Amino acid sequence: MKIDGTHYRTIWLAGDGWAVEVIDQTKLPHEFSTVRLETANDCARAIKDMTVRGAPLIGATAAYGLCLALRADPSDASLDAAYEMLAATRPTAVNLKHALDEMRAAVAPLGTQARAEAAYACAAALCDADVEICRMIGVHGLSIIRGIAEAKPGQPVNILTHCNAGWLACVDWGTALAPIYMAHDAGIPVHVWVDETRPRNQGAALTAFELGGHGVPHTIVADNAGGHLMQHGLVDMCITGTDRTTATGDVANKIGTYLKALAADASDIPFYVALPHTTIDWSLTDGVAQIPIEERAAREITHMTGRTDKGEIVTVEISAPGSPAANYGFDVTPARYITGLVTERGVCAASREGLLGLYPERN
Amino acid sequence: MKIDGTHYRTIWLAGDGWAVEVIDQTKLPHEFSTVRLETANDCARAIKDMTVRGAPLIGATAAYGLCLALRADPSDASLDAAYEMLAATRPTAVNLKHALDEMRAAVAPLGTQARAEAAYACAAALCDADVEICRMIGVHGLSIIRGIAEAKPGQPVNILTHCNAGWLACVDWGTALAPIYMAHDAGIPVHVWVDETRPRNQGAALTAFELGGHGVPHTIVADNAGGHLMQHGLVDMCITGTDRTTATGDVANKIGTYLKALAADASDIPFYVALPHTTIDWSLTDGVAQIPIEERAAREITHMTGRTDKGEIVTVEISAPGSPAANYGFDVTPARYITGLVTERGVCAASREGLLGLYPERN
Repeated sequence: MKIDGTHYRTIWLAGDGWAVEVIDQTKLPHEFSTVRLETANDCARAIKDMTVRGAPLIGATAAYGLCLALRADPSDASLDAAYEMLAATRPTAVNLKHALDEMRAAVAPLGTQARAEAAYACAAALCDADVEICRMIGVHGLSIIRGIAEAKPGQPVNILTHCNAGWLACVDWGTALAPIYMAHDAGIPVHVWVDETRPRNQGAALTAFELGGHGVPHTIVADNAGGHLMQHGLVDMCITGTDRTTATGDVANKIGTYLKALAADASDIPFYVALPHTTIDWSLTDGVAQIPIEERAAREITHMTGRTDKGEIVTVEISAPGSPAANYGFDVTPARYITGLVTERGVCAASREGLLGLYPERN
Repeated sequence: MKIDGTHYRTIWLAGDGWAVEVIDQTKLPHEFSTVRLETANDCARAIKDMTVRGAPLIGATAAYGLCLALRADPSDASLDAAYEMLAATRPTAVNLKHALDEMRAAVAPLGTQARAEAAYACAAALCDADVEICRMIGVHGLSIIRGIAEAKPGQPVNILTHCNAGWLACVDWGTALAPIYMAHDAGIPVHVWVDETRPRNQGAALTAFELGGHGVPHTIVADNAGGHLMQHGLVDMCITGTDRTTATGDVANKIGTYLKALAADASDIPFYVALPHTTIDWSLTDGVAQIPIEERAAREITHMTGRTDKGEIVTVEISAPGSPAANYGFDVTPARYITGLVTERGVCAASREGLLGLYPERN
């Protein structure tokens, strides 16, 4: 999407045609800068230190890491070493392993002199496929927004979102934000309520940065505000992403998503979840019971990083010294609170029947 | 309550018997210090700059402001001037006007030489009355906690609270926290989930400080976490305060309270609201429709103040520069989500019938 009028993806080839460039997301929202990656090691470090984040972008960065390894040394030993190193960067990210497996399958059968070129082609295709999946989520979600807009002509469609399921987490478009970008680009007036998304503030930092850069009207609110907004008719629809979706339509997403789904349900406001099929875990039938919830460092709760008036990036303690904190990363929204799932194949009910209707090959 | 073993109120007479001392709440939770107030002006400034906060404590500070004014000059002109100055400090705080009116009614009929002593007696009585109201809320709430404890012997009662309805907002005990202190002091094992309470972080800063100082086990969580905790059986009851209560039992409390009530309802967890009768507005029948919600400065959302590792207090920008923010201060929890109201007269249903049962004189 655009940043101040210039179109960006989150990852691209440098002008020399071989090095890889990414947006340094650790510096957002305070500074926009890019980083040049020249080796598989550079790519591994960028994933580990969260220069890049978001499952699809992590997969794409790892894929280009293999390209750089094979460009330097196309041997089997080099391929295996780079695969192992890159796979170990974020062991729980499913996309990472998918991307690396696809890359290895494409290049391993080839002679060493053909591998680097094939790897670059495969990585580019992988990125393009992610963009296309997100674009199709956008197309299907757009029809929902268009329907709401037609029912309130001339007034903006107010959409609440939580966390960052935008293009910065993917290669382009994003998942939950793709329909919003499409609606905005199509001239449908939209306004986005951006949940801050404590404790890591992905909403206030990344989603607001994305939307602002592309020119989409938006307002940051505390995570606490959504219920009030919905009670007072200030939200027309909610849409979020998901990190893991059960075969029955429960979704595990950033902590706090469930509370917004409850508020939407209480005020009869549609609540949609956008997802590529890759987040569906067809083996799960009960999200609350079966999806383990990551607990993260207490320091994410007790400390906060930001920029001083002088431009320095500083970390401050914000809670009572000595008080313990617990930091649950995700929560599960049961399917009964979800109006619909927006996938690259269309919109369906959050249920086994709904998902199998779009993915009959899973039956 | 106690801070590291020493009992404090939030306001008390200095050793010399005439000056007033308060805890400097602007420095909490990073530093515990007290401020000596020697004039009505000092008291007005302490209210305005939020050295003291919380409706009951504001009222008590204003009452002592009148004492100090009359000690310096007991004339009618002095009384009137101090009344006006103190009443203007926080014009929307109902307790402030109540306290000042009670003080003026007590001293105005007296000869000037008797006024200062009578004022000090009236201010002390006013503080003691607030303590007694909070203590009785504690007594009634304690029986609820005791009931839960008896059903799970040997295990801690997990209580979730939002914002700060503790002794720092009152003279002692607090409202929502009074039952928790009583349970803890009675040897009932309790553990409190403390909602951070963005954007002003009263939970992480003040409630956690209070509970830690008194030795009550607690854990700070992001406001987003409550739904997850309740889904997984980690909360036995919720209790919050209220800023304004309708005659039908709806409550307006810190933004985000409603979301926790929804989550409690969805998981069949009791949700209580503690209140002195002074928060009941008998003229209101529909909280969502009738209670105006204050909108506060966007900077409370976009900036955060805390302490650096070097001990400096610093304010940092935490959201995307240029993105607007909206800051709603309160939300309304409809009575149907509230298990019971805990008042100084007992526990009742959140309904007109319930409230009139405890306050029949309002019928």
